[in-house]
Amino acid sequence: MNLLLLEDGDFVAEGRALLRGRRLAHLHEVHRAESGDVLRVGRLGGAMGAGRILRLDAEAAEIAVETLEQNPPAKLPVTLLLALPRPKMLKRVLQTVASMGVPRLVLLNSYRVEKSFWQTPFLSPEAIREQLILGLEQARDTVLPEVVIEKRFKPFVEDRLPQLAAGTLGLVGHPGDHPDCPRLVDAPVTLAIGPEGGWIPYEVEKLQEAGLQAVQLGERILRVETAVPVLLARLF
Amino acid sequence: MNLLLLEDGDFVAEGRALLRGRRLAHLHEVHRAESGDVLRVGRLGGAMGAGRILRLDAEAAEIAVETLEQNPPAKLPVTLLLALPRPKMLKRVLQTVASMGVPRLVLLNSYRVEKSFWQTPFLSPEAIREQLILGLEQARDTVLPEVVIEKRFKPFVEDRLPQLAAGTLGLVGHPGDHPDCPRLVDAPVTLAIGPEGGWIPYEVEKLQEAGLQAVQLGERILRVETAVPVLLARLF
Repeated sequence: MNLLLLEDGDFVAEGRALLRGRRLAHLHEVHRAESGDVLRVGRLGGAMGAGRILRLDAEAAEIAVETLEQNPPAKLPVTLLLALPRPKMLKRVLQTVASMGVPRLVLLNSYRVEKSFWQTPFLSPEAIREQLILGLEQARDTVLPEVVIEKRFKPFVEDRLPQLAAGTLGLVGHPGDHPDCPRLVDAPVTLAIGPEGGWIPYEVEKLQEAGLQAVQLGERILRVETAVPVLLARLF
Repeated sequence: MNLLLLEDGDFVAEGRALLRGRRLAHLHEVHRAESGDVLRVGRLGGAMGAGRILRLDAEAAEIAVETLEQNPPAKLPVTLLLALPRPKMLKRVLQTVASMGVPRLVLLNSYRVEKSFWQTPFLSPEAIREQLILGLEQARDTVLPEVVIEKRFKPFVEDRLPQLAAGTLGLVGHPGDHPDCPRLVDAPVTLAIGPEGGWIPYEVEKLQEAGLQAVQLGERILRVETAVPVLLARLF
């Protein structure tokens, strides 16, 4: 938690927030904070600045927001399409997406996504939000990425992806005899990353018809949670 | 498991391997393999090729190695110095390091490494090897990275790091007013990544004295498990 992210519901008065639960425990156990300490704070969806701990005990932390003048860091110009990863990996990928500054994530079905993955409680809006918040706190950002869930591959790719990808560099990561993934591009990107085992050929064709070009990342097959930061670091 | 990695002890005859345990379970549960299937196989430390399943039941899988002619992918020209991460993160970082082709990893103490991290059973040679093997299987590589454990920062950085970093581009990732981390370098690299909370100034000074220059990665603070793939993807 490199940023204490405050939400509307945390405020008990103008500039005064009261924290319990996870953030309180974190202040005690990780920060080993004390009354009077000054922390980096941010307002969810808003600016960042400094807050002072007025009171800190087992029950609550009371924070006075002293400044709130710094803009959060810029987002990456990317829409990330991800075949739904297995639940444990989903949690980490959501954190990574938020911490690296991806503004929009589409979780997509694919032939090789196990049906059971769609049943996970980690896909509830509250659970997704929780992981995104952890990513924002890690990276010092305040703006939640938009997460869209598309349980049907074909209608999404045929009907909505072409508009989404219009005016962007569309890329689909896929092993094989394709050009290397470009580096340091100067355009907004729509980037599709497949499931464990990869997209099936039909899916790559459909993604290509929607305007994405297949690119490869070399001989090594990376886990999705590694491929995401690798591709983003390479592109931007 | 994109590569079935065979060790000397798996062989019951020339070109015949017998598998039980984790890899057997994986063949059943994930690959849903059957007798007659042909799989990618590799010999630990050696070449890669194809193997055929001669027999597969609840007790064992018998594999006939049919070809073994392909070299494993090249390693990255990098030595990675990592402040020891917390145990759960260590496991994933070891897999990432192996799958991305880092040939040498130094796990180093730092002021902000909690002492308890050094007590974890995940630091035993067997546990480290297990995670590295998972990373090699993922990426289709056969060559184990070397992992060196340095529990004392100062003697390592003063006495051994200067020789290790000699003739390489030495970099220490550290937030602050430093040059950006370079991209697509054309030289071997020695790269030091700090713990959660970062190196302390004394440590950055000592690393600089040993020949490393401080570089930064932008405003966003990334988890170590994200910073590792991001920095490697940027450098190579």
